[in-house]
Amino acid sequence: MSPQRIGTSVHDGGADADVVQDYIDRLSRWGRWGPDDQLGALNLVTAQHRVAAAGEVRSGRVISLTMAYDQAGPQQGGLRANPVLLTTATGTDVVAGRQVGTLRALGAADTRMGFADDSVFMPTQCGTQWDALAHIFRDGRMWNGYAATEHSSRGAARNGIQHWTDQMVLRGVLADVARHHQVDALEPGYPITVQDLEATLAAQKVTLGAGDALFVRTGQLGRRRGRWGDYAGGPAPGLSLYTAPWLAETEIVAVATDTWGVEVRPNEVTEFQPLHQVALVHLGLAFGEMFDLDALADDCARDGRYSFLLAATPLPITGAVGSPVAAVAVK
Amino acid sequence: MSPQRIGTSVHDGGADADVVQDYIDRLSRWGRWGPDDQLGALNLVTAQHRVAAAGEVRSGRVISLTMAYDQAGPQQGGLRANPVLLTTATGTDVVAGRQVGTLRALGAADTRMGFADDSVFMPTQCGTQWDALAHIFRDGRMWNGYAATEHSSRGAARNGIQHWTDQMVLRGVLADVARHHQVDALEPGYPITVQDLEATLAAQKVTLGAGDALFVRTGQLGRRRGRWGDYAGGPAPGLSLYTAPWLAETEIVAVATDTWGVEVRPNEVTEFQPLHQVALVHLGLAFGEMFDLDALADDCARDGRYSFLLAATPLPITGAVGSPVAAVAVK
Amino acid sequence: MSPQRIGTSVHDGGADADVVQDYIDRLSRWGRWGPDDQLGALNLVTAQHRVAAAGEVRSGRVISLTMAYDQAGPQQGGLRANPVLLTTATGTDVVAGRQVGTLRALGAADTRMGFADDSVFMPTQCGTQWDALAHIFRDGRMWNGYAATEHSSRGAARNGIQHWTDQMVLRGVLADVARHHQVDALEPGYPITVQDLEATLAAQKVTLGAGDALFVRTGQLGRRRGRWGDYAGGPAPGLSLYTAPWLAETEIVAVATDTWGVEVRPNEVTEFQPLHQVALVHLGLAFGEMFDLDALADDCARDGRYSFLLAATPLPITGAVGSPVAAVAVK
Amino acid sequence: MSPQRIGTSVHDGGADADVVQDYIDRLSRWGRWGPDDQLGALNLVTAQHRVAAAGEVRSGRVISLTMAYDQAGPQQGGLRANPVLLTTATGTDVVAGRQVGTLRALGAADTRMGFADDSVFMPTQCGTQWDALAHIFRDGRMWNGYAATEHSSRGAARNGIQHWTDQMVLRGVLADVARHHQVDALEPGYPITVQDLEATLAAQKVTLGAGDALFVRTGQLGRRRGRWGDYAGGPAPGLSLYTAPWLAETEIVAVATDTWGVEVRPNEVTEFQPLHQVALVHLGLAFGEMFDLDALADDCARDGRYSFLLAATPLPITGAVGSPVAAVAVK
Repeated sequence: MSPQRIGTSVHDGGADADVVQDYIDRLSRWGRWGPDDQLGALNLVTAQHRVAAAGEVRSGRVISLTMAYDQAGPQQGGLRANPVLLTTATGTDVVAGRQVGTLRALGAADTRMGFADDSVFMPTQCGTQWDALAHIFRDGRMWNGYAATEHSSRGAARNGIQHWTDQMVLRGVLADVARHHQVDALEPGYPITVQDLEATLAAQKVTLGAGDALFVRTGQLGRRRGRWGDYAGGPAPGLSLYTAPWLAETEIVAVATDTWGVEVRPNEVTEFQPLHQVALVHLGLAFGEMFDLDALADDCARDGRYSFLLAATPLPITGAVGSPVAAVAVK
Repeated sequence: MSPQRIGTSVHDGGADADVVQDYIDRLSRWGRWGPDDQLGALNLVTAQHRVAAAGEVRSGRVISLTMAYDQAGPQQGGLRANPVLLTTATGTDVVAGRQVGTLRALGAADTRMGFADDSVFMPTQCGTQWDALAHIFRDGRMWNGYAATEHSSRGAARNGIQHWTDQMVLRGVLADVARHHQVDALEPGYPITVQDLEATLAAQKVTLGAGDALFVRTGQLGRRRGRWGDYAGGPAPGLSLYTAPWLAETEIVAVATDTWGVEVRPNEVTEFQPLHQVALVHLGLAFGEMFDLDALADDCARDGRYSFLLAATPLPITGAVGSPVAAVAVK
Repeated sequence: MSPQRIGTSVHDGGADADVVQDYIDRLSRWGRWGPDDQLGALNLVTAQHRVAAAGEVRSGRVISLTMAYDQAGPQQGGLRANPVLLTTATGTDVVAGRQVGTLRALGAADTRMGFADDSVFMPTQCGTQWDALAHIFRDGRMWNGYAATEHSSRGAARNGIQHWTDQMVLRGVLADVARHHQVDALEPGYPITVQDLEATLAAQKVTLGAGDALFVRTGQLGRRRGRWGDYAGGPAPGLSLYTAPWLAETEIVAVATDTWGVEVRPNEVTEFQPLHQVALVHLGLAFGEMFDLDALADDCARDGRYSFLLAATPLPITGAVGSPVAAVAVK
Repeated sequence: MSPQRIGTSVHDGGADADVVQDYIDRLSRWGRWGPDDQLGALNLVTAQHRVAAAGEVRSGRVISLTMAYDQAGPQQGGLRANPVLLTTATGTDVVAGRQVGTLRALGAADTRMGFADDSVFMPTQCGTQWDALAHIFRDGRMWNGYAATEHSSRGAARNGIQHWTDQMVLRGVLADVARHHQVDALEPGYPITVQDLEATLAAQKVTLGAGDALFVRTGQLGRRRGRWGDYAGGPAPGLSLYTAPWLAETEIVAVATDTWGVEVRPNEVTEFQPLHQVALVHLGLAFGEMFDLDALADDCARDGRYSFLLAATPLPITGAVGSPVAAVAVK
């Protein structure tokens, strides 16, 4: 990669592994909020921040950032498949008179009422979702130094997604990098640099501050919508590894993209998902993936306001390493 | 039931079915927002309402209203069981060296990184959840008059929960009826009347207005926590059928309780879940069930403020008749 | 289709629907074993038949007829996906010391022992399987005239697969039509006629009798193995609709192929899966699909014996309309 | 436990752990069938054995040994719950006209046909089932010495249940210990000794030989049927640890009971499931659990024949550590 892509971060051109380890050595926040912390960077959100974030609501518009969870989603099976909705009581049953027994058993004397019911089977990371801090390990450790073995078949004994269920109401900022570059979508393999981010934010006339959640639009979701191909797991534009120091310095608490994995793929170094290793494992950032940012981007382009109140609370599934999320931007 | 329990609503003591049908005849909103409407009462929320709701955020405190989704939940199996978290990659695998092949296949030259992954199998209504407007039928019809057969094994072709994913950011109001009656919990079978609600709100010095979501605390969830017994599906305190006219007049858009089914059980009439038939099917209200209101109630008692910004967005699971929800009150 | 393809069956060339209805009018066995029958053609298997079937065991060889149930299977998602194996306790957990708590809770003082456990989520018809008599309807009726509404979200109140769990031990006969035609595989769309079947059986010097299960090898499974494409649901060789009278006359009780749906696809008439409508719904035959017949075919070619003891008992999943099956031929 | 319970096995009264380890030291079959073996004791079944087993079929009666797989089963949730049948297409949908679109998409011009479809979610060991050799570990090793880490979230890379799918057709012998002791059911905690087994077999006038599968009836399943309580996982009668040498000497290949775990619970020593550690892990025996032996026992008492052809083939679920099984005895 060329130096100009590295933005304000210092990249010495040394061995790949050294970059990752060097970032970790310099930036790691392990222990910063005590040995028992399971919140990570979200500790940086203050009550005042949340009050200010609510102040972003001026028009009352609510914009969903979440893809539909259904069989038309981007997954291809294997580790992750698309969600399966399984009905367990249907309107057709009702009309066919097949619920009368159930209702009688429930004590109903009258059976003009009927009901539908359903279950869902889904990977927690099949669609728009937050990675929990238990999702990624480096050298056998997860956020704050907990052993990887704290995650077993019983789920995550540490850093499970449930710890964030009351955290994800805060100020969100969109960086529409694709629009800034005047393209429909950045190409797979394009590493988004600090310079890209700063130039985009500056052009959008929005400031990014401590406690904010940053949404980076690459345009890839829109380009692939309904013709997913290898969208989930394949090459993608995304954040450069070399944004890590900037992610630390800005003190943002979450970063989300409209791609499957936040960071650029193929990776810039020989390690797999190196930015996850630095920014999720050692900075404690919330990584948000497959956020649908197109409607939000259009709205922001229309009114010129790129900040909003984000409500994107994950389900408190005890011990899960991710959660689907019904995220909204309120402006 | 005694007249004084009926509050301000007129109850003529006629045949049970007549009450339900009479309410429907007088109150039904079918067609009010056009023949294609799938939002129901949520149409009553204006942009101005949402701006005002954001103004409720003054301290920056976020309080979760959602129970943990796990095997310790209240379900007993059958139609609905507790959520099953199923790990598909674990930290223990990583430490045992069992992920090397996967990472190599993904192109990683270095395998200091590892990951955890999981899936969840859950009834959409196993815990804290919103009922979709496709959940309940009366006389073979759901909200707005759509045929019950619009819900089949393929899910809800009409009134699925996905239509609300960008709706549930609004003003919430807590009516802590249990605390107002100075009891830990109302008893199963206790029908909460209009008088109960109005007296509680008045004592709490909070107003309830069009577009608001009303949270009614009975105390039952707290009493049963961890010793669930028949909490899910059994006798419960809850809204009286005779609150239906009041629910219509107030123009609230959602009503949620800390019980499994919002309305009092056993029911006051021979029909099953009659308030669902009137208020969900014909008023188009969002019914919220198994909301954990104890922490919120304590906070409101402490600061004397019983209104808040509610963020309780359901997952857009296409065609589902309910959704788990990570609800929060922001004050 | 040309007359010579119809074999010994009379095909008058009339309107398509007439053929199907005419077969049904002439051949239907509804009521033959009483109004409460749920076994169908399997009533034709006598105890003596089973004793004789056991006599087919002469070499002691056991040959599996079942495909592996895993993510490498032929399904493409949608209504049916490949099986998902979900581990709930792993050897890696054991080695990481993560089972100690569980074992202590179970009363173990010593923890040298460890265990693995798992769950499976699978369509009952994702791989080698029997269709239950509740699987197919014609004109709103299933086998023996039961209303289609006897199958609801609660499963099949009639004709569920569990009724066959103690039935499927009987004499099996292989008709290796592909080998008889000296091809690796018959082409998609090829309708196997009575003439094909009788010529193959004659060349193989094997007789087919009442109570037998007939296995018809097209070669398609072998040709598509691991490169499934549209194997599940797409064009396929298979039994011609015009074999229906012969299926009735032979008094066989089951027919199974190495294709996804037994009968030829595209269908020969405008009705969908017409042979299912005649032979499954009205003759009560067990249809077996995606049986892997290649190893059996090789064995039969080697020893010249095309009959065997079949053990292919479906799981008694109450109310299911199909079941995976671990089928074996014993020779 | 008293010496007379130990039968012909020598029990020196030493430290508990010593007994288990001593048995293993004396009896382990690891390596006996080569370093790559994944069949275990089933290697002892010869082709001649299978021919002879088929000779047990004299009356043509088929008796199911498998419990229904449904919500009325014995599981209580947690690690294992009862099977969930999930319909994905129903007869009620058909009657309501909800399948027309699907059929049209499949190319049907006529829609007199309809279909039902379903999926199942179940622990592989929720009902009548075989334990795979990958199910149990001792000191971090499974059968034949493979490391426990050969079982991960990806399933069993060694000793998965699929290896037995073509093995389980062999001679079965019932030892109806409950009937021999003239009780409905042995009491929980009762350890079945070698003396019990040999006396029962002798009284039944049946011989047990190498290659046989032994079914031991305690009566507990019948006593608890429909009132399961702690049947799954609780105290149970079962094989004594001290039968281990006899299990080795007899060269039987499988042992199954009508209890949840084959061996007596509580265990006789401080180790958890010590007989599993000796006989499954080191002898390579197939352990069969929750087999319903009541109908078989009645039949055997009637005709005086306690041997039969067993067909109990597990599903080849790749890498699973158990499998539901539709087991039958053919006599």
